[in-house]
Amino acid sequence: MHVTIEQAEKAIQAARAKAVELGTQMCIAIVDSGGNLKAFHRMDGAWVGSIDIAQKKAKTAVFFGMKTGQIGALSQPGGSLYGIEHSNQGLITFPGGIPIVDADGEMSGAIGVSGSSVENDDAVALAGASAIGDTELPDHPWRT
Amino acid sequence: MHVTIEQAEKAIQAARAKAVELGTQMCIAIVDSGGNLKAFHRMDGAWVGSIDIAQKKAKTAVFFGMKTGQIGALSQPGGSLYGIEHSNQGLITFPGGIPIVDADGEMSGAIGVSGSSVENDDAVALAGASAIGDTELPDHPWRT
Amino acid sequence: MHVTIEQAEKAIQAARAKAVELGTQMCIAIVDSGGNLKAFHRMDGAWVGSIDIAQKKAKTAVFFGMKTGQIGALSQPGGSLYGIEHSNQGLITFPGGIPIVDADGEMSGAIGVSGSSVENDDAVALAGASAIGDTELPDHPWRT
Amino acid sequence: MHVTIEQAEKAIQAARAKAVELGTQMCIAIVDSGGNLKAFHRMDGAWVGSIDIAQKKAKTAVFFGMKTGQIGALSQPGGSLYGIEHSNQGLITFPGGIPIVDADGEMSGAIGVSGSSVENDDAVALAGASAIGDTELPDHPWRT
Repeated sequence: MHVTIEQAEKAIQAARAKAVELGTQMCIAIVDSGGNLKAFHRMDGAWVGSIDIAQKKAKTAVFFGMKTGQIGALSQPGGSLYGIEHSNQGLITFPGGIPIVDADGEMSGAIGVSGSSVENDDAVALAGASAIGDTELPDHPWRT
Repeated sequence: MHVTIEQAEKAIQAARAKAVELGTQMCIAIVDSGGNLKAFHRMDGAWVGSIDIAQKKAKTAVFFGMKTGQIGALSQPGGSLYGIEHSNQGLITFPGGIPIVDADGEMSGAIGVSGSSVENDDAVALAGASAIGDTELPDHPWRT
Repeated sequence: MHVTIEQAEKAIQAARAKAVELGTQMCIAIVDSGGNLKAFHRMDGAWVGSIDIAQKKAKTAVFFGMKTGQIGALSQPGGSLYGIEHSNQGLITFPGGIPIVDADGEMSGAIGVSGSSVENDDAVALAGASAIGDTELPDHPWRT
Repeated sequence: MHVTIEQAEKAIQAARAKAVELGTQMCIAIVDSGGNLKAFHRMDGAWVGSIDIAQKKAKTAVFFGMKTGQIGALSQPGGSLYGIEHSNQGLITFPGGIPIVDADGEMSGAIGVSGSSVENDDAVALAGASAIGDTELPDHPWRT
């Protein structure tokens, strides 16, 4: 199943609340399990450059069913996935993109957040995803 | 001035209410006066193909400060702007994109709606834009 | 030879003066004979959507050594060049793009103007090109 | 507020004067606060490949409200923003892109310069930006 608009808005509001708590201005994107945009929210004062990054983080997380930072650990020079960012019209592989997993253990979509340090981006994404589901999928051979 | 996130969400909710009234499933996009995405909302059941169209309609409306359909009337075969859709990484020039003009007469952004007939798309966009501003800018030689 | 920056700026100032005379706000682009951007000028209040169109008009004019409107006359439905706008990462084939030809009859670049009616765009482009050269090349089998 | 064309031309002339002083041939781009091109100037003899780099540097600086080199320091292999260049249809994260901040402390646009060593590019960009404003925005958690 795909994330519903009601769930997407709930995730955005939870992410936004966390962003406010951290004193940051974020772009927050929700995509469905096909990687297609469901909802987007740019807080006042957020970087214009984060619009695309937030969406690419969400897309990247759902494309491979894992947190973006897990892919980034493999895409460094010499790593097994070096250069993967060139695929799919651009991926973002540093933290801030997190899958959203429903009660049946199926991925319903993902959230992507950009606008501050990667630690803050990740914390805000986690707050959003956790408001409507889990964030870990069953094991997969690709995962580290 | 750019449209704020509070205004963008108000416009989306007004557009959504109109879409529900019409029995349609819409994608609704709000961009700021620089054409950059501010907020996006895809109703459950809306066409995936409308995600991009809604955003391109909003972008097109803000890029030329007029309703998308006004450009489309000039871009038909034989028309003075035939082929303009090839610019700006793709424009959409049929109805459903409407500028948002603030109380000072300045364009603060635009709304783009896609998901039903162009008449419905336009009605939903108008409901959204009207909730937070005007939709007409001062005269300009290009307007029909 | 390529248009020099001194010539490009002279053409822009002449085009701008014509735009002011017409009461319009224009984007004005100059490309060299390779189609690469030499200079660009966006008047205050010009449409954001015209930034790309002005550049594509200049590029289109230099790519085929003729005024953009001449190509547009052939690219209509049923015409011999129908759909040519899909090439070269997007062409614009309505008036407003004009080649710049030096004293030896060689094309040194082109000017592209966007921001008003195509008649105004073309008049402003002509004012710019004429300030530094001719606008017609010797015959070519493709020309109508 | 967006940078005006008068300011943009003043910045370009100041940047050009610095480039001449350094004996370099530069591409100089000015974008507004939405990242849209305002003015562009390619000195005679400048690399064709610098046309795009200058524009991407200006865009990158305005997208994140900081000098391009600050982002590049974080986007190296192993860095927290590794691969960010894949976003926004291509960023350039080495020095030569600098925000332009007005008297109210708001970012009105950015300048991007390319054509020589990054030290020279940066010096020329600084000369241009300083001619019309400041170059530093208030603190933000992402800055180094």
